Amino acid sequence: MKKTKIAILGATGYTALELMKLLLRHEAAEIVALTSRQEDRPVCLVHPSLTGRLDLPLENLTPEQVADRAECVFSCLPHTATAAVAPALLQRGVKVIDFGADYRLNSAEVFRKWYGVEHPDAGRLGHVPYGLPELFREKIRGASLVANPGCYPTSSILPLTPLIKAGMIEPEDIIIDSKSGVSGAGRKPSLKNLYPECNEAISAYAVGTHRHLPEIEQVIGAGSGKKVSVFFTPHLTPMDRGILTTTYSKVTGEVAEEEALEELRRFYAGEPFVQVVDALPSTKDVIYTNRCHITVRRVGARLLTISVIDNLIKGASGAAVQNFNILFDYPETTALL
Amino acid sequence: MKKTKIAILGATGYTALELMKLLLRHEAAEIVALTSRQEDRPVCLVHPSLTGRLDLPLENLTPEQVADRAECVFSCLPHTATAAVAPALLQRGVKVIDFGADYRLNSAEVFRKWYGVEHPDAGRLGHVPYGLPELFREKIRGASLVANPGCYPTSSILPLTPLIKAGMIEPEDIIIDSKSGVSGAGRKPSLKNLYPECNEAISAYAVGTHRHLPEIEQVIGAGSGKKVSVFFTPHLTPMDRGILTTTYSKVTGEVAEEEALEELRRFYAGEPFVQVVDALPSTKDVIYTNRCHITVRRVGARLLTISVIDNLIKGASGAAVQNFNILFDYPETTALL
Amino acid sequence: MKKTKIAILGATGYTALELMKLLLRHEAAEIVALTSRQEDRPVCLVHPSLTGRLDLPLENLTPEQVADRAECVFSCLPHTATAAVAPALLQRGVKVIDFGADYRLNSAEVFRKWYGVEHPDAGRLGHVPYGLPELFREKIRGASLVANPGCYPTSSILPLTPLIKAGMIEPEDIIIDSKSGVSGAGRKPSLKNLYPECNEAISAYAVGTHRHLPEIEQVIGAGSGKKVSVFFTPHLTPMDRGILTTTYSKVTGEVAEEEALEELRRFYAGEPFVQVVDALPSTKDVIYTNRCHITVRRVGARLLTISVIDNLIKGASGAAVQNFNILFDYPETTALL
Amino acid sequence: MKKTKIAILGATGYTALELMKLLLRHEAAEIVALTSRQEDRPVCLVHPSLTGRLDLPLENLTPEQVADRAECVFSCLPHTATAAVAPALLQRGVKVIDFGADYRLNSAEVFRKWYGVEHPDAGRLGHVPYGLPELFREKIRGASLVANPGCYPTSSILPLTPLIKAGMIEPEDIIIDSKSGVSGAGRKPSLKNLYPECNEAISAYAVGTHRHLPEIEQVIGAGSGKKVSVFFTPHLTPMDRGILTTTYSKVTGEVAEEEALEELRRFYAGEPFVQVVDALPSTKDVIYTNRCHITVRRVGARLLTISVIDNLIKGASGAAVQNFNILFDYPETTALL
Repeated sequence: MKKTKIAILGATGYTALELMKLLLRHEAAEIVALTSRQEDRPVCLVHPSLTGRLDLPLENLTPEQVADRAECVFSCLPHTATAAVAPALLQRGVKVIDFGADYRLNSAEVFRKWYGVEHPDAGRLGHVPYGLPELFREKIRGASLVANPGCYPTSSILPLTPLIKAGMIEPEDIIIDSKSGVSGAGRKPSLKNLYPECNEAISAYAVGTHRHLPEIEQVIGAGSGKKVSVFFTPHLTPMDRGILTTTYSKVTGEVAEEEALEELRRFYAGEPFVQVVDALPSTKDVIYTNRCHITVRRVGARLLTISVIDNLIKGASGAAVQNFNILFDYPETTALL
Repeated sequence: MKKTKIAILGATGYTALELMKLLLRHEAAEIVALTSRQEDRPVCLVHPSLTGRLDLPLENLTPEQVADRAECVFSCLPHTATAAVAPALLQRGVKVIDFGADYRLNSAEVFRKWYGVEHPDAGRLGHVPYGLPELFREKIRGASLVANPGCYPTSSILPLTPLIKAGMIEPEDIIIDSKSGVSGAGRKPSLKNLYPECNEAISAYAVGTHRHLPEIEQVIGAGSGKKVSVFFTPHLTPMDRGILTTTYSKVTGEVAEEEALEELRRFYAGEPFVQVVDALPSTKDVIYTNRCHITVRRVGARLLTISVIDNLIKGASGAAVQNFNILFDYPETTALL
Repeated sequence: MKKTKIAILGATGYTALELMKLLLRHEAAEIVALTSRQEDRPVCLVHPSLTGRLDLPLENLTPEQVADRAECVFSCLPHTATAAVAPALLQRGVKVIDFGADYRLNSAEVFRKWYGVEHPDAGRLGHVPYGLPELFREKIRGASLVANPGCYPTSSILPLTPLIKAGMIEPEDIIIDSKSGVSGAGRKPSLKNLYPECNEAISAYAVGTHRHLPEIEQVIGAGSGKKVSVFFTPHLTPMDRGILTTTYSKVTGEVAEEEALEELRRFYAGEPFVQVVDALPSTKDVIYTNRCHITVRRVGARLLTISVIDNLIKGASGAAVQNFNILFDYPETTALL
Repeated sequence: MKKTKIAILGATGYTALELMKLLLRHEAAEIVALTSRQEDRPVCLVHPSLTGRLDLPLENLTPEQVADRAECVFSCLPHTATAAVAPALLQRGVKVIDFGADYRLNSAEVFRKWYGVEHPDAGRLGHVPYGLPELFREKIRGASLVANPGCYPTSSILPLTPLIKAGMIEPEDIIIDSKSGVSGAGRKPSLKNLYPECNEAISAYAVGTHRHLPEIEQVIGAGSGKKVSVFFTPHLTPMDRGILTTTYSKVTGEVAEEEALEELRRFYAGEPFVQVVDALPSTKDVIYTNRCHITVRRVGARLLTISVIDNLIKGASGAAVQNFNILFDYPETTALL
């Protein structure tokens, strides 16, 4: 298998760590550079679990220096930071997989509304594939830049899209109630993610204002021609990782629970990482994997979906490796089973 | 303060333990009997945290024996077991506070539908006050039997009732998404509540079929004259205790977030255990207390309420002590601050 | 009961919060001032669990301003900060209970060695009672300044002292292996106490260098006339609160397990907060209480003690209230049962 | 790579699940049978995380039936159950890796003392290699039966053996204080491993009586010609997985901390799964890996070692796969990186 040289931008956080662990299992991935603005030391001092596994320093590199070494860049930088360097990387023929939100939205206006700043590379918006292979595999293949999805959107879009496409549920008045582990809040110390604040505690946050909302609405309604409206409430749950998303949609007509399950099974037949299950899933069934388990329940006039993923893997780094495999023509499941 | 002699039926579980801890702080409560079918040993062998605090044996007693000793009985027995002994206790002048569901529903038919058995004391249904003092204080005062509310219902009824009464939200199509700590699942060993199954895991259970649903619908719609429909999904969350309930209701007309908050503040003004707060509450703000914190958010056409309680205290034993204080004319907050 | 006016210095942390909760249950305690250098807002914004319970602002006050309002000061300030203000408070007749280490050690030299700075009030060292009522009750009574013990020392001194005094174990080569919940690390955000760093993780820290070591050696060896040496290793354990301390000592001669247990029972007979138990205790038996459970095991030539406390209560705020009760002549268990 | 057909006996527990996950990543491992006395259903009903990954039933098979299908058996059966079937398997040319204690001890008498029963296959004792490749690789190679080590022994033997062999510490009066996640207690429901009993709780158990003790003493003292004595105390820690072991030994003469570290580095040079680290390790650095991180501290006359492993991987299933790789001549790290 031909090797591909990889750089990771912003390598000190949890998604970057998870990415490195996955890539270390990938026989064709060769990590050649790790960047960080603040650090200048071996990566295993920042991530002790990499001791004896990855012997690279964290470096403060320019896009040009990165392009000199790498054929593929995974960017774990904060929003707008990737869009500030992506053009230079792409121009030099480097493929880019962005973990952030810079290229997920199709509209510069929507970006401005939700992120409060002008997009630094607005011209590309609308031309970058949304990196959810189960829905956009063909667009991703052949791309040079991929917008890796947000963790909540992945957990919401996978169960809802087939049901909307099949006309089984209304795309309007969908309630999405998500519960995420604390690793989703990142690795930057703050009062709200201290152990004694999060442990033995669950709380909602960013009610109605979370930046993953426009991303969900954009994708699930695409092509439906109908008005899409979603109420999205994320909750911080006392566990390291995992997202469970419960959605409540209005059924259209006489859709039975079993029909909805069957439709999901049909839609995801052959997909290696999406399992439609009968029993109610637990995040524990999928953490530390790239998998999504989904089930459906019909209750009165509502169809509920319940889906679980690992926020750091299928919700971030695993999806990124899946996209990498597609971009570089490796078997899609490499390093992910 | 005149002392009251107390017996606790079914004293080996978590709610009974919590009850004993509260009563040990109550200067007028004198625990005189603890029953259990299976045990015949000091209570502190079953609950080591009571060592040096409560020196009583667990005994297998008949209702008559209990009535000989106690003026008030707290029953932590499984459903139908309380209704099997309550008549004998009441006949002997003992007041009864039932932690279970036996006397919560007004209709024997609804009971049969949800519990799958005939009610053993159906004649009393509809005449027993629902033990939520914030709504039914006057009915509780003077009663001899109180139906202590379920934990999920308490967390749902407190935020929803004032808004429905004020006509600010529709009682129909209300979605209630609750997240509970594992102590709510009881102390009986089973695979599903083993530590390695629950830890680092969140899952939904009893979707659309949880027995707390009819109780919620019965109370929140009382007197509204409108059709009430609720979708209720409980989730098992990796923490000992605490319930966070997120509800999504349709606003009626032009209710602003601040108006809804104001209505809740007005409704609960003077209530010692319900706080209407501005910030999004965490279960951590209320665990180990008898308090409920509530807030409201308006998102589009929906009004969201977010409320938190300790499932074992305000959701069970604390409410029971609150009812006890009302029944026996002690200051309502005794042992609960 | 005559009321006592209380100020709390450094009221934003976890021990201060726990202290306030205890004092709110104390019928004679009247909290009149809360200080903080950084804040100027209602305490319930910093501690949401106090909403509706304590309506005071955090203020930046001088010792003189504090002395104008309060008769008793609980100081939760960092080390040397209490010693900088205590003289002014004491001079104005205010009694002081210090949560920190400033007055625990008898020697300015030992203080300098372990804390790396000169003691600001060295003249008082050696004259301040160590606030462990079970050992020093009479010295505390009548004092105006009390050095509240460290959490690890409390969990170590209580089991070891009676056995050393009785000549049952050698005070030399004692190994103390302690496991503490994360609240012991304080409320200041740092990478090491982030949820995803601490959760699902146990680690040792400060091996052989923890500042609680000299405190333990000073107290357990007092009056033994023998050389005392302790190896102390604290571990950060994924739980909010609780300390379990396992000690390994050499038995002197033919001490049987039961004799050691008996000696502990005799020593602590009548003590309301120390229970000598037969079974191996869990931190869960004592968290949220002011109690210490202790047991002993004889294994070969070693006597093991296993003891559990709540680090924030018996290891900090509960002990402080116990000392307060002694200083102001209230029943010692007030607010602590 | 030539494939090897594998059967797993006792496939419903946590170590078996972990084993299956590892083997699914092993390109030469073909799982052909899963046994269980109680079940007759697809394995993914018992282990939902295997959905879409392993489509095999749990079957109740005789040793002969197993031997007809498999070339290698991993036995996760309780003690004495493996020894009851191993002879029949070995006779039919099947290689056996035992997760249990049946073949770990060299002496039938020691087995009887600690396990309270006669050994069913005593003749083999003393001739079965102890499956810790870092110490016994050559004996494992060429064996047909391997005794996979206990989790606590692995975490204790790896740090202690090189220091004893080098004469740096005394093999006598070694104190081993271990802290394990709850998965080590198995998957059988019991009060003591319920979530609300274990969560927010740490406790010691089996003090001085744990069956891993003779195994540790047998291995660390082998060939030292000196008397070996160990005090071993395991603690149940509120986390899924991971063991941290702290040992306290007497240094012999003037061994400096750095010398001990250097000796460990020398001893484990080239070992893929043992890393000698400078910083104090956390279980989090190694969970979900087959690695052991070790460090050393010199405190006074004692040398402390601190080591961490994942109890289910390096402490059980990962070690078993490592042994499998050696037995069947695959690269030793296959499926373990």
